[in-house]
Amino acid sequence: MERRVNRQWRLASYPEGLPRESTFRYEEGPVPEPAEGQVLIRSLYLSVDPYQRGRMSSRRSYAKPMEIGDVIVGGVVGQVMRSRHPGYREGQFVVGLLGWQDYALSDGEGLRRVDLEPGLLPGALGVLGMPGLTAYFGLLEVGRPKPGETVVVSGAAGAVGLVVGQIAKIKGCRAVGLSGTDEKAALLREMGFDAAINYKSAADIREALAQACPRGVDVYFDNVGGPITDAALTLINLKARIIICGQISQYNATRPPRGPRQFHLILAARARLQGILVSDWEDRYEEGLAALAGWIREGRLRYRETVAEGFENAPVAFLGLFHGHNVGKMLVKVADPAV
Amino acid sequence: MERRVNRQWRLASYPEGLPRESTFRYEEGPVPEPAEGQVLIRSLYLSVDPYQRGRMSSRRSYAKPMEIGDVIVGGVVGQVMRSRHPGYREGQFVVGLLGWQDYALSDGEGLRRVDLEPGLLPGALGVLGMPGLTAYFGLLEVGRPKPGETVVVSGAAGAVGLVVGQIAKIKGCRAVGLSGTDEKAALLREMGFDAAINYKSAADIREALAQACPRGVDVYFDNVGGPITDAALTLINLKARIIICGQISQYNATRPPRGPRQFHLILAARARLQGILVSDWEDRYEEGLAALAGWIREGRLRYRETVAEGFENAPVAFLGLFHGHNVGKMLVKVADPAV
Repeated sequence: MERRVNRQWRLASYPEGLPRESTFRYEEGPVPEPAEGQVLIRSLYLSVDPYQRGRMSSRRSYAKPMEIGDVIVGGVVGQVMRSRHPGYREGQFVVGLLGWQDYALSDGEGLRRVDLEPGLLPGALGVLGMPGLTAYFGLLEVGRPKPGETVVVSGAAGAVGLVVGQIAKIKGCRAVGLSGTDEKAALLREMGFDAAINYKSAADIREALAQACPRGVDVYFDNVGGPITDAALTLINLKARIIICGQISQYNATRPPRGPRQFHLILAARARLQGILVSDWEDRYEEGLAALAGWIREGRLRYRETVAEGFENAPVAFLGLFHGHNVGKMLVKVADPAV
Repeated sequence: MERRVNRQWRLASYPEGLPRESTFRYEEGPVPEPAEGQVLIRSLYLSVDPYQRGRMSSRRSYAKPMEIGDVIVGGVVGQVMRSRHPGYREGQFVVGLLGWQDYALSDGEGLRRVDLEPGLLPGALGVLGMPGLTAYFGLLEVGRPKPGETVVVSGAAGAVGLVVGQIAKIKGCRAVGLSGTDEKAALLREMGFDAAINYKSAADIREALAQACPRGVDVYFDNVGGPITDAALTLINLKARIIICGQISQYNATRPPRGPRQFHLILAARARLQGILVSDWEDRYEEGLAALAGWIREGRLRYRETVAEGFENAPVAFLGLFHGHNVGKMLVKVADPAV
């Protein structure tokens, strides 16, 4: 059923520390009309991602910050409702950075068609979207894992981490995952990880990781940062590769976080450490999506989604990321596709 | 004049913090006799280098630690006194890791002939030796500076740093050096650095560096670590390259040093950070030496040496590195070449 109003979540204030209710402002506006060359898209699923926290700050991050009053930036899977753009027709599914709102206009820039059956649409925000591509390019292009090497991933039960560990297995590596509950650790093992650590219950993270990595750490894929990363760096092998994909444990810090200096470890191992953003491989998305889809078809890559129901729950779902409430990709279902 | 005894400095104990007199033990032994396939080499110049501190510890570093009683590991320029090796004849100059002693035997492994006139021999431990090669390969292969970019080097008046800044200029970059005295900063400017900062007198290192780098930092070549590196990392540009060559400010720490966590900056800039050791480019030393020698001949690369006189002064010269007593390469003259 088409709505008469366009519900929107906008940025009300830059949060100090953990975002909260007052960070977001709910608004209703008119459904916009597409101009010539534009399409009107109805949101079906909104993506909530840790990187969005970085945009809610005037601090330097990968992208320029949101301004107060902006619709919250975020990925959306939607359906074309009206098209005045030659490349799109009504009913098609698309994905793009359309923001936390029911309706958005697009001139096609940054928009991508999604050829998935309706039940698989959330995948376009997860395993077959930015998180899957981040895992694919980050691990393979920066991590360059060789068969027999040990790949450790933090935030392993998250949207990116689950894919990283499974690709590591596909590439013949030992995959070790760190996550924050026993249930998640059990899931990782079920997904084929060779070892999984609940870092919250481990008496000594470093010791647990050392036991899980008897031949040291060749590739460390970091989504989390902080003490987990400190532990991993003490175990790196010569010429280790470290992928800095996220630092979720640090995003809500109100004071600049401090920790042990680690560069002497990187020097001793002659390791390489690199910060990544998936859009650096934008010209190779098709290759990545084809590989991921192929592994899914072959049953070698599995995924999980945590779906919150209802537009009103987007802020709560987003905050849940920082409490580890998601298994796999976290998203918000806003509407059913029109048939 | 040939000596009758072989003076040696040996490791007496692993130092806690800054090495001191009790770290070293002076010994005299017989001059060894070369067996078939060996050469006897007399030391002319001993190298003292920050990396040696790492060897005086059971802590993990690039190489395995020295054991108590070992002759102190170090580079030496020497002269072949007797040869029972087909590749060497008496009188030739050589360089190798022969240790802090008057005489050493070698079977040729790791030994390299030096074709320099006697007055230029110290260069084989400096600008035309490991430090020069470290600067060359570290900056060009890992830093990959592009014309117009800004290259910042810490420990800029040291053996490696002086070369890094000048190669940066040769490659068309803006070169900015950090050093610890006004005299060193003046030397850097004289050597062609675009800006030089005395970090000890700067009210705010970050502010001074920001002023010296109006277009940010594209390449940071780190010999020092600690607060200087913290400051540099806050100024890196997108896709910056960070070369971790040394962390001299940290080597004598008695407790694990702590500092601000920086990986979020590396993530935001999608920067790459890599620990280096010159021997990773061992198969390309000839190329590097040819390039460095060419620039010296053309007057585009200049160098400085700080020479301590006398075998007995090796420990003092070594300790001087941690107090910034050297300008350019620090070495110890032990004997004159025989003619």
